[in-house]
Amino acid sequence: MLQTRAGKRTATAAVRMAVEMVEEGLIDKETAVLRVDPAQLDQLLHPMIDPDAKYDVIATGLPASPGAAAGRIVFTADDAEEWAGRGETVILVRNETSPEDIGGMDVAEGILTARGGMTSHAAVVARGMGKCCVAGCAAAQISEANKTLTFGTTVLKEGEWITLNGTAGEVIVGQVPMVEVQVEGYFGTLMEWADEFRALGIRTNADTPQDSQTALDFGAEGIGLTRTEHMFFEGDRVNVVRQMIFAGDQQGRKQALAKLLPYQREDFIGIFRTMKGLPVTVRLLDPPLHEFVPQDEAAISRLATSMGLSIETLRARIESLEEINPPMLGHRGCRLGITYPEIYAMQARAIFEAAAQLTKEGTSVLPEVMIPLIGTVQELQITKKICVEVAEAVMEETGVQFEYLVGTMIEVPRACLVADEIAAEAEFFSFGTNDLTQMGFGYSRDDAGTFLPVYVEQEILARDPFQSLDQVGIGSLVRTGGLKKDAP
Amino acid sequence: MLQTRAGKRTATAAVRMAVEMVEEGLIDKETAVLRVDPAQLDQLLHPMIDPDAKYDVIATGLPASPGAAAGRIVFTADDAEEWAGRGETVILVRNETSPEDIGGMDVAEGILTARGGMTSHAAVVARGMGKCCVAGCAAAQISEANKTLTFGTTVLKEGEWITLNGTAGEVIVGQVPMVEVQVEGYFGTLMEWADEFRALGIRTNADTPQDSQTALDFGAEGIGLTRTEHMFFEGDRVNVVRQMIFAGDQQGRKQALAKLLPYQREDFIGIFRTMKGLPVTVRLLDPPLHEFVPQDEAAISRLATSMGLSIETLRARIESLEEINPPMLGHRGCRLGITYPEIYAMQARAIFEAAAQLTKEGTSVLPEVMIPLIGTVQELQITKKICVEVAEAVMEETGVQFEYLVGTMIEVPRACLVADEIAAEAEFFSFGTNDLTQMGFGYSRDDAGTFLPVYVEQEILARDPFQSLDQVGIGSLVRTGGLKKDAP
Repeated sequence: MLQTRAGKRTATAAVRMAVEMVEEGLIDKETAVLRVDPAQLDQLLHPMIDPDAKYDVIATGLPASPGAAAGRIVFTADDAEEWAGRGETVILVRNETSPEDIGGMDVAEGILTARGGMTSHAAVVARGMGKCCVAGCAAAQISEANKTLTFGTTVLKEGEWITLNGTAGEVIVGQVPMVEVQVEGYFGTLMEWADEFRALGIRTNADTPQDSQTALDFGAEGIGLTRTEHMFFEGDRVNVVRQMIFAGDQQGRKQALAKLLPYQREDFIGIFRTMKGLPVTVRLLDPPLHEFVPQDEAAISRLATSMGLSIETLRARIESLEEINPPMLGHRGCRLGITYPEIYAMQARAIFEAAAQLTKEGTSVLPEVMIPLIGTVQELQITKKICVEVAEAVMEETGVQFEYLVGTMIEVPRACLVADEIAAEAEFFSFGTNDLTQMGFGYSRDDAGTFLPVYVEQEILARDPFQSLDQVGIGSLVRTGGLKKDAP
Repeated sequence: MLQTRAGKRTATAAVRMAVEMVEEGLIDKETAVLRVDPAQLDQLLHPMIDPDAKYDVIATGLPASPGAAAGRIVFTADDAEEWAGRGETVILVRNETSPEDIGGMDVAEGILTARGGMTSHAAVVARGMGKCCVAGCAAAQISEANKTLTFGTTVLKEGEWITLNGTAGEVIVGQVPMVEVQVEGYFGTLMEWADEFRALGIRTNADTPQDSQTALDFGAEGIGLTRTEHMFFEGDRVNVVRQMIFAGDQQGRKQALAKLLPYQREDFIGIFRTMKGLPVTVRLLDPPLHEFVPQDEAAISRLATSMGLSIETLRARIESLEEINPPMLGHRGCRLGITYPEIYAMQARAIFEAAAQLTKEGTSVLPEVMIPLIGTVQELQITKKICVEVAEAVMEETGVQFEYLVGTMIEVPRACLVADEIAAEAEFFSFGTNDLTQMGFGYSRDDAGTFLPVYVEQEILARDPFQSLDQVGIGSLVRTGGLKKDAP
């Protein structure tokens, strides 16, 4: 034997070979599991461009939400809904998206934006929807008026096909062949073997019963994060949310919240029912209120009319919500729960009424209420008290007893440093490494694109700390939090 | 004796009583020093409103820069310069200030802005100038067109008198009597006694020879922070700075930097000469470049013409500098020194050429070059290397040997966690508690006004952590940094 080389193989072939070699007695199961590269497995979990397809990439942006999609170009959310309504597959192309675009994003196969980072509205919502998205594609010149998408000398019109590769941030002109997800057969067998060896539990992010079911099918053992803010954007609800925000006093906010309560309760009933007693961590409202504010003239005018406010008054209230450092370091997370306790009280009631109803029906439930952005134990004491009082009131009103936990996300550096104090109140911790990385390094994820590539190139950082946790620095914060939590 | 009470007294009286009681043998010096409340001493160090004056406060804003000032209202920086030129004392009133206003701010007795927080341009520049400033006074309606300043039903016109109390954030209509600073007599005696007992060294912030001299007169033992960015705004220099920023390539940036070099060298010669061999810590460029960008149409147009660029090209370059999370977490500090090494090289050259020239003249100098915003040791290695190479080149060129240090400001939480690594490169540490508090708590100082007052009121925080350091959380970060630094 003069020379040996590892045989190159596609993800599908790699999985099949690993399984068949065990069946033939050549290797054991543990070796088989270790033989498949995790990055290859990830490919199998999203629709992807056929690895055999030949194509040219016309532009690249941020890989904001993985998977691939092909569709006809549309330039507004309304057009997306109209085209999809008559059976077309569409890609929504926008300079940036806003809450008004949710309906169009929902029906689109994928989303392309010219502006915005990894935590832009388009990116966050697309990831929540499990939909492919290429964001911040600066080379894309978008004219909504002319309905054209231009890359240099290439001008694409409404209705022309493009393909997005959200895993790599690539934009391709035309329709490239796709490969669909497969979770059975050899893949399923390999995953079963992996379960025998793994030491970590696996929970999913899911905001809807559909997402929850998909995750269960993939083997999730619970939900680790249900973001309640996406529920605030759905359908007509955002109008009620806006009425709440601009109500001007607590009484007005409570009236609007009372209208939201049944919607939120139904959200949780759907998710809890799907999860059949597996733990579900629900994060109370986290983003700053200005994220729900209407952006365009017409929407502002409609909202003013519906609330009986002058446009000037509404504009003044909108301006009062503006922040200099959005969206990370301002009036958000538990800070909202402290300044507007009625919001968290409504969300807690929706969770616990859902728990009571399902318990009564004989379906077991295990809600875990997570308070975001805790930095001091006092914040958790105050917001936990709101939840516990609502839980006890709901048990009293319904005559039903149910289990629940109240805990927190540790995502502010200070929380790691005083984790011993916080642990005295929290029934669980969840570490939020995205915000810990942003605050610990002092990097805004949206803005770091101007220097992070240089940092990786010059080996100042071994890799992008938003893709792969910085174990020395941010990891030591997490370790401190874990050690302090367990301190006597 | 049925009852005793502590006699109330003004700051001046308190100091005089303490000194005279020692002279009369009633108390010892240490007791005398402890008898005077530090807050009272602070009053004596700024021009202040006569404690006996009666006045009504018409509106309050943020106490952005301490001291008090009275003057005639002007609404533009040009008017301020014109009025001051003919001997008037003026207060500059603006919605917010920008780099173009520096000349007007410099001649004004005080500055009032309707918008902006404690780190707004007006606030930061005013503090640097030691000039009183009330910022973010939301009740002030300012019409630059009509030249009116309105508070509710009170309309003030250009030229009318107002008084600002920057220590308390108060705005007063009319001219209130002032008390001037006095650092001799009883006060001077008490300060001399304090020197016998204090354990801490005292350095000042100073960006000019004048500030340095004032600080020396007050007993400073060196400069702890010279901010070089303020020097970039002075006079016509900001135009050269802008030519550097928008040059488009390194060659163009170097040409503009070559024009800035003699100015910066003169800045440092002035400061070093004044400080006569006492240590001077100079922080290399820290703010993001977009802070130097012109704001108004005319300035943009002039800059485009002077650079031979089309307005569209210049606008595109300005847009490329915009950030979502300014001014804290983006492309600033040593990140600029990494991506534009020629900027730090020019600043280092200015410092070391100044050091060489003064050494040659027989004046001793001790420059300490401080690299801001270090989060990884690699950043310090790269930027320190730039400084050391320039220092060696200057010594070679001039034939003069001089002492210098290269160190860093520890202001990013991660830097505290890896302080042992950073200490291997740094010749000194300076802890930046403002940014450590912002990033450690996840509070934007500019936006925290919406919830911090509620937090203090509800005792979630004992006090505003930007006024009084949070010892438990942020203090433990500083402690970690200190311990790690000294670890073997």
